[in-house]
Amino acid sequence: MKIAENPRWSETRLRVRYAETDHSGVVYHSNYLIWFEVGRVELCRDHGFNYRDMEKEADAFLPVTELSVKYRVPARYDDEILIRTRVVRLRSRAITFEYQVIREKDGTLLVEGKTDHIVMNSQGKARAFPSKYADKMREEETRNKRK
Amino acid sequence: MKIAENPRWSETRLRVRYAETDHSGVVYHSNYLIWFEVGRVELCRDHGFNYRDMEKEADAFLPVTELSVKYRVPARYDDEILIRTRVVRLRSRAITFEYQVIREKDGTLLVEGKTDHIVMNSQGKARAFPSKYADKMREEETRNKRK
Amino acid sequence: MKIAENPRWSETRLRVRYAETDHSGVVYHSNYLIWFEVGRVELCRDHGFNYRDMEKEADAFLPVTELSVKYRVPARYDDEILIRTRVVRLRSRAITFEYQVIREKDGTLLVEGKTDHIVMNSQGKARAFPSKYADKMREEETRNKRK
Amino acid sequence: MKIAENPRWSETRLRVRYAETDHSGVVYHSNYLIWFEVGRVELCRDHGFNYRDMEKEADAFLPVTELSVKYRVPARYDDEILIRTRVVRLRSRAITFEYQVIREKDGTLLVEGKTDHIVMNSQGKARAFPSKYADKMREEETRNKRK
Repeated sequence: MKIAENPRWSETRLRVRYAETDHSGVVYHSNYLIWFEVGRVELCRDHGFNYRDMEKEADAFLPVTELSVKYRVPARYDDEILIRTRVVRLRSRAITFEYQVIREKDGTLLVEGKTDHIVMNSQGKARAFPSKYADKMREEETRNKRK
Repeated sequence: MKIAENPRWSETRLRVRYAETDHSGVVYHSNYLIWFEVGRVELCRDHGFNYRDMEKEADAFLPVTELSVKYRVPARYDDEILIRTRVVRLRSRAITFEYQVIREKDGTLLVEGKTDHIVMNSQGKARAFPSKYADKMREEETRNKRK
Repeated sequence: MKIAENPRWSETRLRVRYAETDHSGVVYHSNYLIWFEVGRVELCRDHGFNYRDMEKEADAFLPVTELSVKYRVPARYDDEILIRTRVVRLRSRAITFEYQVIREKDGTLLVEGKTDHIVMNSQGKARAFPSKYADKMREEETRNKRK
Repeated sequence: MKIAENPRWSETRLRVRYAETDHSGVVYHSNYLIWFEVGRVELCRDHGFNYRDMEKEADAFLPVTELSVKYRVPARYDDEILIRTRVVRLRSRAITFEYQVIREKDGTLLVEGKTDHIVMNSQGKARAFPSKYADKMREEETRNKRK
């Protein structure tokens, strides 16, 4: 099975590290959340900004408030992995992302997930999305709805 | 606020490690899943068996198939943490656990979670719970329903 | 073999977590460094202060500048582990710790290590040890030399 | 400063993940060991084989027996990192690698390290390097000495 190019998703690739496996022989389940984060950061880069800059310049952080994950097939050491990420909901003070984790060599869908985030400053107070970054995210969401 | 002793939950304690925090100053969100695992293992111990033995002697593993987490308040470096774990559903080939992560010093509920697991052998085939261990888990579930 | 109580070392215990193992069946080697950190923090507590407070109140951090580790026998999932930590050298702007990682059930020495640290403020500038904390550390070093 | 292309080193690149930082604002020091592993795996790939295959087909594992690291400058979140790895010693039952961790954008050397490994089978017994893989490693070592 070939993964069709789907313009709605940002894509990034990584290879499973030894340290990410556990003694049952597969990737330990918490590591997929770290890969989701890799996906979010690359989605930002795809939309013309750097998540790090948003933190530093605009004092806007996106802590996770809720998440859910479905584990279908385990990833294994040295597998090439495709992470697909998209924005599915954007509010003035919150954002939701969806993810697919796919084994590159045969297109198998391994894991799916969703994370909800709020926008906070470095003192932990809720705040609105900085407009510069919200606009770029909004393009993303609009594009998804159109499809 | 003092946490009332609740006999339905297994309890275990840990202290937040430096490596578990991230540069935003709080615990990185994937680490709570590792703490949930610590909670499951201690729940097994509370019920008279060792999760490691179940893997080794009975060739029964409990991979996570689905999970959800709500993040309310972040844990911080060096916080003493109470993990509360209980069995909420037990089938012949599946089990569901619930968790509460609590800041020990003031009883604040930080994070809640739920994980679904199936029973598999080391070759990755679904199998029934080994009866020796299922019985001990069943006591647990019955106890929870009675309350 | 029974570990003799050695007053020169601070001791703390932990249990190997599932996430700390890798697909070869033993603890992944980088995790011992995290356990060394657990040992340092407990050594501070043994000497009447909290490493977190030193960071917050005195703006003094102890980044690792150099380390070495010898791996003798691997730790495995669910092993009970004893971490022994001591100060072996203390200067106005630097400190060196030594560690032993021991399997609790039979006293086997698994891993030994040494870490060098300098004292820095939160802006990354070298600074002297805050005297309040240096004094407590110095007692420790003196005690070690006397033995 | 531009890093001169040095044919003696295998090179691979990665980007610092959020989860790899700690609350002091920089990469937690144990994570560089995980990056060294990424470097070793890519060195194998550069020499025409897959470390995973050596484990699976030849039952040869390379556990770390000793390591040392010098930390010069900390890596930070989202930095692009260049990992340089080379074989510096090869015996029938042992191998030593060296590493440099470099900040891509300005060529700053952040961390240097060295790891010693022995060859073992999956039962934990020492064994000789499988000749097929030793030959490929030997080319590497010879190449380094000639320079």
